[in-house]
Amino acid sequence: MFDLIIIGGGPAGITAGIYTARQKLKTLLITKTFGGQVAKKAVSIENYPGFEEISAMELIERFKNHLKKQESMEILENEEVTKLEKNNNHFLVWTKNKDKFEGKAVIIGSGTDPRPLEVPGEKEFIGKGVSYCAVCDGALFPNKKVAVIGGGNAGFETALLLSNIVKKIYILEYDSEVKADKRNQERVEKTGKAEIITEVDLKRIEGEKFVNSIIYQDKKTGQEKTLAVEGVFVEIGSQPATSFIKDLVDFNEKDEIVVEFETCQTKTPGLFAAGDVNVGRFKQIITACGEGAKAALAAFEYIQRLK
Amino acid sequence: MFDLIIIGGGPAGITAGIYTARQKLKTLLITKTFGGQVAKKAVSIENYPGFEEISAMELIERFKNHLKKQESMEILENEEVTKLEKNNNHFLVWTKNKDKFEGKAVIIGSGTDPRPLEVPGEKEFIGKGVSYCAVCDGALFPNKKVAVIGGGNAGFETALLLSNIVKKIYILEYDSEVKADKRNQERVEKTGKAEIITEVDLKRIEGEKFVNSIIYQDKKTGQEKTLAVEGVFVEIGSQPATSFIKDLVDFNEKDEIVVEFETCQTKTPGLFAAGDVNVGRFKQIITACGEGAKAALAAFEYIQRLK
Repeated sequence: MFDLIIIGGGPAGITAGIYTARQKLKTLLITKTFGGQVAKKAVSIENYPGFEEISAMELIERFKNHLKKQESMEILENEEVTKLEKNNNHFLVWTKNKDKFEGKAVIIGSGTDPRPLEVPGEKEFIGKGVSYCAVCDGALFPNKKVAVIGGGNAGFETALLLSNIVKKIYILEYDSEVKADKRNQERVEKTGKAEIITEVDLKRIEGEKFVNSIIYQDKKTGQEKTLAVEGVFVEIGSQPATSFIKDLVDFNEKDEIVVEFETCQTKTPGLFAAGDVNVGRFKQIITACGEGAKAALAAFEYIQRLK
Repeated sequence: MFDLIIIGGGPAGITAGIYTARQKLKTLLITKTFGGQVAKKAVSIENYPGFEEISAMELIERFKNHLKKQESMEILENEEVTKLEKNNNHFLVWTKNKDKFEGKAVIIGSGTDPRPLEVPGEKEFIGKGVSYCAVCDGALFPNKKVAVIGGGNAGFETALLLSNIVKKIYILEYDSEVKADKRNQERVEKTGKAEIITEVDLKRIEGEKFVNSIIYQDKKTGQEKTLAVEGVFVEIGSQPATSFIKDLVDFNEKDEIVVEFETCQTKTPGLFAAGDVNVGRFKQIITACGEGAKAALAAFEYIQRLK
């Protein structure tokens, strides 16, 4: 029986682990990989206080080492949670490898998965031109033309990353204005490789063995247009990774977990949700860390009260 | 006219500044000093994710440099806010040096001041043995006996710091158990210099030119006892630094500012409170940073809506 089980190894889960270990709680952290959303970025991070500029990779390394230094902490990597239940006063956690763990409290920090486009051609060309992770797949497109779907910060950061590799990047935005912050817009402009097209309604992805073009409707004119690209990077947001959890929490319309923000407690006592997975409007590394610490301290109080 | 005025240079205010500067908001940060509560600690910090161990001084330096690197940021150091008002759609901020600034939004990150003991002798001996800051005054007590009043984390961290300087430390706690976390208790025990006394009701501080003893009632026996000490370090908590603000916010019974935790917004639109100064239960460096970022992003949204 663990005191606490943490699901997820992103900034929220890692911070929760650092905090509970300091309280000598017997803690288990289960995660597929470390870093969460951060691991999918290769651009430098400039808004985590204490580091004027640090690569995503290095920040994750530092987080991971910080976590692993804690005693009274057990870590299960390359593992995935498939089911979570509450039984009387404790929680049961099942994993893909058919293990079952028990804990007095649980913190969900499982973050998000990329949101799909849901257009014809998307599924067929996954791994054949369609990608949800420029860090993972960008290097496959040297001197090619590619499209980034989505004009938010994620889209612009993806474009920035790709700009070192590809010849030309189209950034396609559904609305009439991109949403990336000014600093990211400036950085992308400097690369000289990006063309931003707004009011784009993407219709389908085409190709033979690999992607060779995308077709969209220009919302201004109603006209259908074709762009010749060999890569399509999807950055239209993400959806919370919460398929393993059903009745123990309430969800909003985006499937995000409803919490009370002072403690990150869900509607189930002893069950907390921190970081991108909850309904919080601002999803940043530093806000996820802050919530991880709050959830950990609230979980500690909850466990103390059980005694 | 500034877009945003940030009051306070602790972790919350600094993070808010880093975030708003990235949004190219014209920002003014007003603070007496940098670091907030962190500046009063000299022990190493082990729970700010990314640094397994870092001195408080170094972390503040890194925070400060990170902030000062931001463009579109103006910083007013050695200055104190004396009054805050709202006039139509903007805020007026007065300072001790009789300056007046205007901003569209304000983030209060003014943190806390130490809570006084309120026993006879305390005021008289401030600077003559009574201290609220071991980092500032600890060096004045080489090989002396001192008392730390308060058995929470702050008291134990103070004891730890003093253990390199003084001969003997009494840690006095009003309740029957100290509240410091286990890790801090272990670290203090290792010094071999600390004696913990619980159920202590401090009655007065005595001395001639300087402190020479404290008198307390042993709550177990009712007996009055004397400890010969030359230094008294007060670590019984803190009170929010909110004297400059009156009707614009609601306070709880501890004079902390009531906020809605998703955005750190107070009851006044455009006015936010982040970090130790608000009602948040968990007051940590990382939680203050997270709240600073949330307040900054919410302030940005608020200012955009004004246009």
